[in-house]
Amino acid sequence: MSAALRVGVAGLGTVGASVIRLLDERRTALEALSGRGIQVTAVSARDRSRDRGIDLSNVRWHDDPVDVATDENVDLVVELIGGSNGAAKDVVEAALKRGKPVVTANKALLAEHGLDLAALAEENGAALAFEAAVAGGIPVIKALREALPASRLTRISGILNGTCNFILSRMEEEGLSFADALVEAQRLGYAEADPTFDVGGFDTAHKLSILTSLAFGTQIDANSIYVEGIASIAPLDLAMADELGYRIKLLGVATRTDAGIEQRVHPTMVPKSSAIAQVMGVTNAVAIDGSAIGELTLVGPGAGGGATATAVISDIVDVARGAVRLPFGLPVALLEKAEKAPIRTHKGGYYIRLSVVDQPGTAAAIATRMAEQGISLESILQRKPRDKKQSESSDTDVKTVPLVLITHATSEDAARRALDAVLADGHIHGSPQVIRIETE
Amino acid sequence: MSAALRVGVAGLGTVGASVIRLLDERRTALEALSGRGIQVTAVSARDRSRDRGIDLSNVRWHDDPVDVATDENVDLVVELIGGSNGAAKDVVEAALKRGKPVVTANKALLAEHGLDLAALAEENGAALAFEAAVAGGIPVIKALREALPASRLTRISGILNGTCNFILSRMEEEGLSFADALVEAQRLGYAEADPTFDVGGFDTAHKLSILTSLAFGTQIDANSIYVEGIASIAPLDLAMADELGYRIKLLGVATRTDAGIEQRVHPTMVPKSSAIAQVMGVTNAVAIDGSAIGELTLVGPGAGGGATATAVISDIVDVARGAVRLPFGLPVALLEKAEKAPIRTHKGGYYIRLSVVDQPGTAAAIATRMAEQGISLESILQRKPRDKKQSESSDTDVKTVPLVLITHATSEDAARRALDAVLADGHIHGSPQVIRIETE
Repeated sequence: MSAALRVGVAGLGTVGASVIRLLDERRTALEALSGRGIQVTAVSARDRSRDRGIDLSNVRWHDDPVDVATDENVDLVVELIGGSNGAAKDVVEAALKRGKPVVTANKALLAEHGLDLAALAEENGAALAFEAAVAGGIPVIKALREALPASRLTRISGILNGTCNFILSRMEEEGLSFADALVEAQRLGYAEADPTFDVGGFDTAHKLSILTSLAFGTQIDANSIYVEGIASIAPLDLAMADELGYRIKLLGVATRTDAGIEQRVHPTMVPKSSAIAQVMGVTNAVAIDGSAIGELTLVGPGAGGGATATAVISDIVDVARGAVRLPFGLPVALLEKAEKAPIRTHKGGYYIRLSVVDQPGTAAAIATRMAEQGISLESILQRKPRDKKQSESSDTDVKTVPLVLITHATSEDAARRALDAVLADGHIHGSPQVIRIETE
Repeated sequence: MSAALRVGVAGLGTVGASVIRLLDERRTALEALSGRGIQVTAVSARDRSRDRGIDLSNVRWHDDPVDVATDENVDLVVELIGGSNGAAKDVVEAALKRGKPVVTANKALLAEHGLDLAALAEENGAALAFEAAVAGGIPVIKALREALPASRLTRISGILNGTCNFILSRMEEEGLSFADALVEAQRLGYAEADPTFDVGGFDTAHKLSILTSLAFGTQIDANSIYVEGIASIAPLDLAMADELGYRIKLLGVATRTDAGIEQRVHPTMVPKSSAIAQVMGVTNAVAIDGSAIGELTLVGPGAGGGATATAVISDIVDVARGAVRLPFGLPVALLEKAEKAPIRTHKGGYYIRLSVVDQPGTAAAIATRMAEQGISLESILQRKPRDKKQSESSDTDVKTVPLVLITHATSEDAARRALDAVLADGHIHGSPQVIRIETE
């Protein structure tokens, strides 16, 4: 049997501690599967004294994480520090330059520097693996990189952020406001004190950019993603969605279109009967569409020490077995610089909720503005408020009611022009709520 | 770039033709992903003259499929003949003995000879890959073999036969009898003229045996599987399931229990809200449960030329990249000979439908027999037939009505004893319909 693979772990938060714990608990099985032992020889973390519930008596501590990469008793570096710059980037680069394989969970780093790091890995003949960077324990990176070479992929979409999916699930289940559901998420440790990165959709965007590159053989392009978070979603929207046969999820979607690769993150109405609609709480899911394969859906834990560590360790075993791939499947030189399809070229259906003055003719006037842009309406719903959830509060004495429009497929451009005209007409109060509908 | 990988394909049915077509259509992408060309150099099939819509002008034809394996211009053999013995086995053995990697879709061959073939592959340093043998285009073999080394798996369950799932879906959607739904399936090409292998659950059993070996690190044991098909399912069962919040699926399930590895295939009631319950038509799904990972669910096309060929080609690219694993993940010597937990040790809930004479006291008498075995009942439903779907026909003048019992978790042994007593009491006509309930 070969000599043990010596692993250095930079970063000992929840995931790092879980990795070390599982490498120990599963030692025998991992050795049998890898054909060699796997041994943690060095670590770095900000706080050496914290009790992480793991035995670190036989590992070498480094204060500077880069020293984990340069440690001559380390063959493979696991980077779990996080962040797109600073120590994480330094550690990864130091390892790759020495031809040492790197396993990382760092989506921000890959979103910003993935192409350069893949090139560096290739130049030095080193592996750069990142199963843990997207959708936690779901082996979506491996699936995209290895399982579908015969398929020309056309679409990838997913629930990639457990914080947002948990919040939307709780809002749906209990009729909570976004603010109240967020507080609950924070209390349970599913959301940060400053939750912006998650609820604003940015975390999903980073993860989507990685999936897009793998799915379409294109250079990572996190800057071209249209991003909208979930903070504007109201209990009324969830109630209306339910009535109309939909659920609301924060989706990251990337598709090939005539205008190029379209990448977008935003609250989305999905049919209740779809697999993605059933995914509740902190669970993640990814749907992959392509020629020959039709549609493949993967559902599982998107975060958590155990699930994420499982992904890290699957990459480590790949390296131990000598079964590594190029970071993005294709050589960097063959990754295309894709045309970016801006959101204005998006086509699909729209849920539009407006606060209108309760008087005859408003609905007709609004429908006319839609028609002027060639937008065909599937439904117009103007309800008297039935209960507290549906009534609207207004700063003025004017009584407003919600008016909901469901459009047939149209373009984002047309939808925006129509709404601009409606706003200019003065029929509505406040801003329109617009939620894209995904029927496929 | 390395020399092209030369592929021989034995068997040119739907899947074989799709493999050759896709290898041609995706030539450029596959070469970029593999780091080398992939070229079909030899084929064998029973009918050389049939037009399969593919260009075979540059390949060498062999009448004897074993000659594909021994052809010196073939590096890798794809076996798509099928069947657990005969030509398929001969081809695979001939290739492995020559150290040539084999890619197969043959679940029957693996179910019966998988252990010996894995040993032969290992002895000769050759790959034996079979992604296409289970769940078509869903990369479940790769997921089990490579993605979850850090998890101790506890349960694997799936909808593994599209014929059965299609029939049950149609029965549910239209209230068709099993016989009528089968005819429809046959007309659409989803069921064979002799459908026994599919509807009897045997195909699912073969596939389950492969998943069990990979999931639990045990020697394949297809003979230890309890198998029940779907032919006894009546529209009334599907209607009752729906009322009670369930759907009926033919599941293959393998779990670790105190009594050993339990493998079973049978119609199963699953909660309507579960991911598995949403899987309709010919789609397949596999749910994997284990430590650290919680639950992972994979959904996708279980059959069809394109989907199955995608799986075959992912194995070919693994070989082309030099990224192969041992057939069952672990060396054959480390695969445990598992204790087999017989069905009598199974524990769970049961749906029991009996045809009883419509008279007072029958339900009470039956409930008493249940109680005598320590079986606690969740529901007893005795309905007057409301419509044709629910009324029963009887050969005698005796009027019978359906009595449905839903038990809480109990043992198979207790359930059988109780039913034996009920039968002996003479309260029921015909046989009981018993469907196991899966709540997790």
